[in-house]
Amino acid sequence: MSQDQILVCGHDLVEDVMGQWSFAELTYTAMTGGQRPTPEQARMIDVLLTTFVDHGVTPSSLATRLTLLGAPESMQAAIASGLNGAGSRYLGTMQLTAALLQDALAEAPGEVDLLAIPALAEKIVERARSRGEKIPGLGHPEHKNGDPRTPKLMEIARQTGVAGAACALLFAVADAFAASSGKSLVVNAAGLSGAIVLDMGLPPEAGKGLAVISRAAGLVGTVLDEMRNPQAQGIWDELR
Amino acid sequence: MSQDQILVCGHDLVEDVMGQWSFAELTYTAMTGGQRPTPEQARMIDVLLTTFVDHGVTPSSLATRLTLLGAPESMQAAIASGLNGAGSRYLGTMQLTAALLQDALAEAPGEVDLLAIPALAEKIVERARSRGEKIPGLGHPEHKNGDPRTPKLMEIARQTGVAGAACALLFAVADAFAASSGKSLVVNAAGLSGAIVLDMGLPPEAGKGLAVISRAAGLVGTVLDEMRNPQAQGIWDELR
Amino acid sequence: MSQDQILVCGHDLVEDVMGQWSFAELTYTAMTGGQRPTPEQARMIDVLLTTFVDHGVTPSSLATRLTLLGAPESMQAAIASGLNGAGSRYLGTMQLTAALLQDALAEAPGEVDLLAIPALAEKIVERARSRGEKIPGLGHPEHKNGDPRTPKLMEIARQTGVAGAACALLFAVADAFAASSGKSLVVNAAGLSGAIVLDMGLPPEAGKGLAVISRAAGLVGTVLDEMRNPQAQGIWDELR
Amino acid sequence: MSQDQILVCGHDLVEDVMGQWSFAELTYTAMTGGQRPTPEQARMIDVLLTTFVDHGVTPSSLATRLTLLGAPESMQAAIASGLNGAGSRYLGTMQLTAALLQDALAEAPGEVDLLAIPALAEKIVERARSRGEKIPGLGHPEHKNGDPRTPKLMEIARQTGVAGAACALLFAVADAFAASSGKSLVVNAAGLSGAIVLDMGLPPEAGKGLAVISRAAGLVGTVLDEMRNPQAQGIWDELR
Repeated sequence: MSQDQILVCGHDLVEDVMGQWSFAELTYTAMTGGQRPTPEQARMIDVLLTTFVDHGVTPSSLATRLTLLGAPESMQAAIASGLNGAGSRYLGTMQLTAALLQDALAEAPGEVDLLAIPALAEKIVERARSRGEKIPGLGHPEHKNGDPRTPKLMEIARQTGVAGAACALLFAVADAFAASSGKSLVVNAAGLSGAIVLDMGLPPEAGKGLAVISRAAGLVGTVLDEMRNPQAQGIWDELR
Repeated sequence: MSQDQILVCGHDLVEDVMGQWSFAELTYTAMTGGQRPTPEQARMIDVLLTTFVDHGVTPSSLATRLTLLGAPESMQAAIASGLNGAGSRYLGTMQLTAALLQDALAEAPGEVDLLAIPALAEKIVERARSRGEKIPGLGHPEHKNGDPRTPKLMEIARQTGVAGAACALLFAVADAFAASSGKSLVVNAAGLSGAIVLDMGLPPEAGKGLAVISRAAGLVGTVLDEMRNPQAQGIWDELR
Repeated sequence: MSQDQILVCGHDLVEDVMGQWSFAELTYTAMTGGQRPTPEQARMIDVLLTTFVDHGVTPSSLATRLTLLGAPESMQAAIASGLNGAGSRYLGTMQLTAALLQDALAEAPGEVDLLAIPALAEKIVERARSRGEKIPGLGHPEHKNGDPRTPKLMEIARQTGVAGAACALLFAVADAFAASSGKSLVVNAAGLSGAIVLDMGLPPEAGKGLAVISRAAGLVGTVLDEMRNPQAQGIWDELR
Repeated sequence: MSQDQILVCGHDLVEDVMGQWSFAELTYTAMTGGQRPTPEQARMIDVLLTTFVDHGVTPSSLATRLTLLGAPESMQAAIASGLNGAGSRYLGTMQLTAALLQDALAEAPGEVDLLAIPALAEKIVERARSRGEKIPGLGHPEHKNGDPRTPKLMEIARQTGVAGAACALLFAVADAFAASSGKSLVVNAAGLSGAIVLDMGLPPEAGKGLAVISRAAGLVGTVLDEMRNPQAQGIWDELR
C-alpha cells in the first residue's frame, strides 16, 4: 500500500477492482493468489457462496448468539465462535470428497480420459467397501430422496462449463456404489461442491473456505438479528 | 428445512436463490432478516464487500498463519483467530461514524431536510471539539492527501442512488471541521462506508459485519496461500 | 530454550519450577513478567482462581458444547469459543472496579492514608451519582442479601495480608453510597476481586485474566463432560 | 445457584471450596464431573499445569499479541486466538500417546499384569513399524539427549504414587523400539503426561485439557506483557 495506491492480489483496488469485480471474482482471485476467474468461474463461485449461507437455528448460530450475550462489544468474536464450529462434522464432507476425487484423478495416468472414469469409480467403491469405510459425498441424513441442491448445482456447473472430470467421477462413484451394494445413495451438495471446486482448479480446502465465508455472512445476519430481537438470554434461561 | 425444501431467510434456497441471487443480495437479505435489496443496493453491497478484503500482510493474516501452524487440521479456527482481531482499532471507525451520523440524523425533527445538514454538521463538530474528541470517519494515518477509496465509493453510491442524508452529512462534517479548525481532514473509506450502510437502511453494526465477511474471504486466501507457500514457521523462527 | 534447559519467566522450568512452584505461583509470575509472589500472594491467587471456575450451564459452556458438536476434533477451539464470551457483560465488573479504584488511589496525593479513604469514597459516589452512572462492584442481580463469596474472599485477603487500600476503598464506597442514596448495595465478588488484584500490585486487567484461566478450566470440564455425556445435539434439537 | 448458595461440581463453593481446595483440585474435580482427587493426584495435576505454561515467543503468543493489536478491548478474544493454535502439531502428542496406551491396555485381558507390559510394548512397536508409522510420545525435535522434563515428571509421578501401567508401558515402548530399530528415542514430556493422565483415571483428552489451561495462563501473561511493553505493532512493521 503506497500512499495513493492500494494493491489487492496484485491489482489496483480503486482503479481495477472496486465497482468492476464482484465479491465472487475477488474471492477466487484471493484463493488462487492472484489468478482471475473467467466470468463463468466467477458465477459458479457466487452460486457456491449462496448455497452454504447458514439458515435457521444451527449450532454455529446458537454459539454466536450466546457469545454475543457475554461480549456484546465484540461482534467479531461472536462470529468467530460460530465459525470455530465449522469443523469436520458438517463441513468435512466437502473437503473429504474433493481429496478422494483428487487422489483418484491423480492416479490416472496421463490426462483423464472420460472413458476411464467408470473404472476409477469402481476402484474407489471397492476400496472403500473392502475397508468398511463410508464414501464421502454420498448420502444425506435428511434428504433421503435426493439433496435438492445437487441438481441445481450440477445444472449451473454445466451451464458455466466448469463441470469436468471430478464431477463426472463423483456421479460415477454413486452409480458404482449402487451397482456394487444394491443400495442407492444420493450425491449430496457438499460432496458435489467439493468436486466443482476441484474442476475449477482449486485445492480441496477451497470448498471449505467458501463455506466458511458463507457462514460468516449467515452469522453476521445472526448477530444483527440478535441485536434487533435478543434470544440468547431466553435460550440460556430455558436450558439451565 | 423439510425433507425436500430448504428455506433461507424465508425463501426457497433451490428454487429462488441458487443461481438467481448474488452472494451480495443474499448477504443483504440475511442482514435485514428477510428484506431483499434493490439491484442497486445489491451492487453497493457487492462493492463494499470488495473494498475491505484484506490485502498483504496484516495483523489478522499473521494471526491466521500462526494459528494454522499449530492446528493445521482446523482452518476454520485459523480464520476465526484472524477475525478475533477485527476489533475497535481498525474497524471501529465504520461503526463509530455510522453511530455518530445516526444519532445526529435522529435528533433532526421530521424528515431530514438537506438544507439542515450543514447546521447538523456544525453541531457535531462543535460538540467534538469542545470535548476534545476526535471525529470518527475523518483523517487517515497513511492517505494524507485523501483516501483513494473514498471518491470511488461515493461515485458508486451516487450511481446506485443509495447515497443519502448520512453521506451528505459526513462530507458536511468534514467541511465544518475544516472551517472551524482551519485543518483539512479527508473523509476516509471506513467512515464513508458507515454512512453508506446507514443510507441503505442498515444499522451501524452492518458496516462492521460486511468488513468481517470481507476479512473472512481475505483470510481464506491467506490459509490457502499458507498451504501452498508456508511462512508461519519462518516468521516464528525470525521472531524468537 | 536451549537443548537442555527450558526457561519460563527467567527461571529453569525443570530445576526450579516443576514440583516446587504451584500453578498459582507460576501464574502470578507470568502475569508480572517474572516477579515471584510471596506464599501469601500465591495463596490468594489460588483462591481467586477457584472462585470463578464456571459452574453449571452458562452461555460460555453452551457455546463450547455447540462448537464441539461441529468440530469434535478441535477441543481447543470449542474452549476458545466459550472464552470469546468472557466479555464485558459478566466479567467487565472486575476490571471496571479495579480501574475505578486505581484512578481514585492514583489521584490521592502521596501514599494513601487510610484516614483519607472515606473522603475518596465519597468523591467516587458523588461523581457517579451526579452523572447518573452505576458504580461497578456494587450490587448483584441474584444475591440481593449479599454475594456469599464476598466475606470469604475478604477473610482470605485479610489472612494473607494482601488486603490493602483498594479493598478498604471499595467497602468505603459501598458505605458512602448507602449514606448518600439510602440504598444499600452489596459489594460483589467480582468487584472485590478487582480490588484484591490491585492490592497485590497487579493491573486491573489481571483480574479478568485470572477469570479467563478459571473459565478455561471450567470449559475443559465441560468438554470432557460433553464427550462422556453428549448434550449439544439434544440442545440443538430442542431449540430448532 | 440459589440466592445464597453457589454449587460447583456438586460442592458448596463458599463453604467447601474457596480457601480449601487448590485450583488443581478443582480442575481435577471439574474434569471428572465431581470426583475429588487424592492429595497426591492434586499435586500431580498441579505439576502438569506448571509444565506446559507457554514460555517465550511461541506461535500462540504471537497470535495473541497480534489479535490484541486490532481488538485491545477484547483480551479474552486475544487469548482465544492463541488457544485456537493449540491443535495437533504441538499438543497432539499428549492425546495420541494416551490413546495408543489406552488401546493397548484395554486389549490386555483382565487386569494389567506388569509382567505383560513388555509384550504389549513389543506389539505396539511391531505394528507401528510394519505400517511405517511414528510412535507418539517418543523423540523430540530439539531435546535429542532427552527431554529434561521427563525424569522430573516421572520422579513426581512416582512420589505421588500415580505412576502405573500406562507410564510403565510407555517406557517399555521406548525400550522395545530401541531393541527393534537399534535407534534410541527419548520419551518426551508430552507423551509421558498423556500416560500420567491415564494412570490417574482420566481420558486421553484430559492431558490436552490441562495443556490448554496452562496455555491460557501463559497467554494471560502475554496479554499483560503486551499492555506493559507493546510489541505487536513492531512485529507487524518488521514483517510487512
